[in-house]
Amino acid sequence: MRRIKLVVAYDGTEYCGFQVQNNGPTIEGELNKVLSELFKEDIRVIGASRTDSGVHAYCNVAVFDTQARMPAEKMVYAINQRLPEDIRVQESSEVAADFHPRHTDSRKTYEYRIYNAAVQNPMKRRYALWNYYKLDVEKMKEAAAYLVGEHDFKSFCSADTQVESTVRTVYEVAVTQSGEDIVISVSGNGFLYNMVRIIAGTLLEVGKGRIEPNEMPRILVAKNRQASGPTAPPHGLTLVKYEFL
Amino acid sequence: MRRIKLVVAYDGTEYCGFQVQNNGPTIEGELNKVLSELFKEDIRVIGASRTDSGVHAYCNVAVFDTQARMPAEKMVYAINQRLPEDIRVQESSEVAADFHPRHTDSRKTYEYRIYNAAVQNPMKRRYALWNYYKLDVEKMKEAAAYLVGEHDFKSFCSADTQVESTVRTVYEVAVTQSGEDIVISVSGNGFLYNMVRIIAGTLLEVGKGRIEPNEMPRILVAKNRQASGPTAPPHGLTLVKYEFL
Repeated sequence: MRRIKLVVAYDGTEYCGFQVQNNGPTIEGELNKVLSELFKEDIRVIGASRTDSGVHAYCNVAVFDTQARMPAEKMVYAINQRLPEDIRVQESSEVAADFHPRHTDSRKTYEYRIYNAAVQNPMKRRYALWNYYKLDVEKMKEAAAYLVGEHDFKSFCSADTQVESTVRTVYEVAVTQSGEDIVISVSGNGFLYNMVRIIAGTLLEVGKGRIEPNEMPRILVAKNRQASGPTAPPHGLTLVKYEFL
Repeated sequence: MRRIKLVVAYDGTEYCGFQVQNNGPTIEGELNKVLSELFKEDIRVIGASRTDSGVHAYCNVAVFDTQARMPAEKMVYAINQRLPEDIRVQESSEVAADFHPRHTDSRKTYEYRIYNAAVQNPMKRRYALWNYYKLDVEKMKEAAAYLVGEHDFKSFCSADTQVESTVRTVYEVAVTQSGEDIVISVSGNGFLYNMVRIIAGTLLEVGKGRIEPNEMPRILVAKNRQASGPTAPPHGLTLVKYEFL
């Protein structure tokens, strides 16, 4: 038995998120189906990030065990031939039999993309949130800086989640602008449910002038979902980097 | 009666090109329908570039005549509320009653995008041609230079077209690379049927080593569609700039 690690890119528009569920197609479900058919075994992948419905990824990670003899590096091509065109494995490699992507220390980077223009650009509509009003990017940068470090992010976690601890370490929150494109880039060792989308939604409120940057410490200490901004829609979010430490 | 000019962006994936036809939905057809409903007149737009099925645009131009009193600059918002999400008017303005977008001298720029990587990126699949083998971009640049200027582009025109003259002036053909993205940018005063896609298909052959850059003069003087490369697929092509001179 060998354990294989896949780096998986997907356009999440048509999927009900990564994790298998009954409501509709999922990335995990497509991978399980294609791998089981290809290797004629009952294969269930273990995913790294359980991205939400509509969220994209350049590099989510999934591992699976197989008795197949195909060289691990060649699997990427055989798997891609069977996957739908909005999912593409980027790399396949053999890893230690006890490697578990969720139990290994990691650094994940998400990007939340905003298209800030008076009129929508149809070519941006799938991968960025369109925002009509001009955002104050300097204020967004200022507010973002308060989130860096180890904090209790309870105010940035969907109220319906049960986790042991809501303390997480955020390594970087960068807000960059290039023309009409604004990108919020968030790196951390792990994120609570909807955390990056709530950070993006709160920074959008800052950009609109509804929350001042210096209110961020108060929002953090409130430890209350009501204190932060709305959850930004999923289609602007992409998992762009996944590093195991 | 006033003549209104629209600058129109669209994701051409789901359309049978700009020009109205019976096979399926078109950009022109959608505009005619929405404008006629909005202004309660029988409106038929005059388009500038009749882009092919599957080709995209940031800035195609369409004009129409109306008796509506709505300020021209406000029309963009009213029209966009009724258009499907893959078509968005970028600007609306009043022009002279005799302005005709196809009978006015212009400079058009098209970009042909190539994603040159071993594995497809699902987020690029709609707007770039994926090419597995590494292309020789320096050779493509060298070959592109031969196309600049006034030439008879008969070798770069689909054989089934009837036009008075196949002489056109190409102002610039630039090939640029940024990581795994290659962009062929072509500016000219007008293009023959499929001309930019045949230029892209020929430069792809050069990038693959099947045509040498110094064969380009021979291909031009042949005045024969058989001499050039294949027509590159439409989804990599976008009309990016349209200037009236």
